[in-house]
Amino acid sequence: MRGYSLSKEDYLLRLRKIEGQVRGLQRMIEEEAYCIDILTQLSSVSAALQSFGVRLVDEHIRHCVVGATSTDDEGTRDAKVTEAVAAVERLVRI
Amino acid sequence: MRGYSLSKEDYLLRLRKIEGQVRGLQRMIEEEAYCIDILTQLSSVSAALQSFGVRLVDEHIRHCVVGATSTDDEGTRDAKVTEAVAAVERLVRI
Amino acid sequence: MRGYSLSKEDYLLRLRKIEGQVRGLQRMIEEEAYCIDILTQLSSVSAALQSFGVRLVDEHIRHCVVGATSTDDEGTRDAKVTEAVAAVERLVRI
Amino acid sequence: MRGYSLSKEDYLLRLRKIEGQVRGLQRMIEEEAYCIDILTQLSSVSAALQSFGVRLVDEHIRHCVVGATSTDDEGTRDAKVTEAVAAVERLVRI
Repeated sequence: MRGYSLSKEDYLLRLRKIEGQVRGLQRMIEEEAYCIDILTQLSSVSAALQSFGVRLVDEHIRHCVVGATSTDDEGTRDAKVTEAVAAVERLVRI
Repeated sequence: MRGYSLSKEDYLLRLRKIEGQVRGLQRMIEEEAYCIDILTQLSSVSAALQSFGVRLVDEHIRHCVVGATSTDDEGTRDAKVTEAVAAVERLVRI
Repeated sequence: MRGYSLSKEDYLLRLRKIEGQVRGLQRMIEEEAYCIDILTQLSSVSAALQSFGVRLVDEHIRHCVVGATSTDDEGTRDAKVTEAVAAVERLVRI
Repeated sequence: MRGYSLSKEDYLLRLRKIEGQVRGLQRMIEEEAYCIDILTQLSSVSAALQSFGVRLVDEHIRHCVVGATSTDDEGTRDAKVTEAVAAVERLVRI
């Protein structure tokens, strides 16, 4: 079972809101809105995506990493932590 | 005239691609994909948004700020630079 | 015992290098170097700091969170994960 | 003349404070402080560096880009904007 299944609806709601914000950006471009207003909207979309990512990291550590710790051998546990940290690193770099 | 009108189609294509990527994230959540794979896809959406933002900053400085410099008084020019830097600051912080 | 003690020397070496880079930035300002060259050097200092932060997150999850999982009750374990994710969130936002 | 010379002392004060914060991180590692406390301090150093970078971008656009606009030909002006945006891009990506 995947770690995030309990809040699947919450994740989908967040993503649908983000999709709507991206369509809002398209309307702004079509209506030739002022660049600075577009950049302000873009910052808000990016912040929503990052917040979504941080929640995923939370659930991943809580369910997959901690799950691995109680049931699996040390090698599996280490691999899970390495994988989680690599995901954090990508999130930090963007 | 808005600074980015020449490449309006290019901006819309980028945003439609980003919208498609956000819908891809929704499918991944619905199909309960592995969190790490979702985080990888999310990093790619965020990078595309940031790249879009940097292009907007480019056009804004090139057209609005430089445009302000040749035609307007010092106060208007200073205000345009301040506004552009505030947008850069929001982009850097997210 | 703190989680990162095994690589204490490695962390100190990285921080001393970062301190040297910050002094390098001071010399550039004193010698009135070109802003773009200073910004390039600044990007390299920030990347080094982020990489240091990601290593700390790695060791923290590996030792404190996983350590908590094997020995402590569920409440302690949950608190440790929450704390680790809050640290990741601050790292992502800067 | 370099664009930032008027506030050279302000830049140096900020960098000396950042240098002190990096030495503070070294003391924390030596005293084996709790990882989360180190990460909190690290976020504050990174935010100070970013704020320094944004100020440099401000002065660069204000003095070098706007300076180029009034005195130089279109090619030089374009090259200055391209260079400034590349610096913003590096700042955004880190």
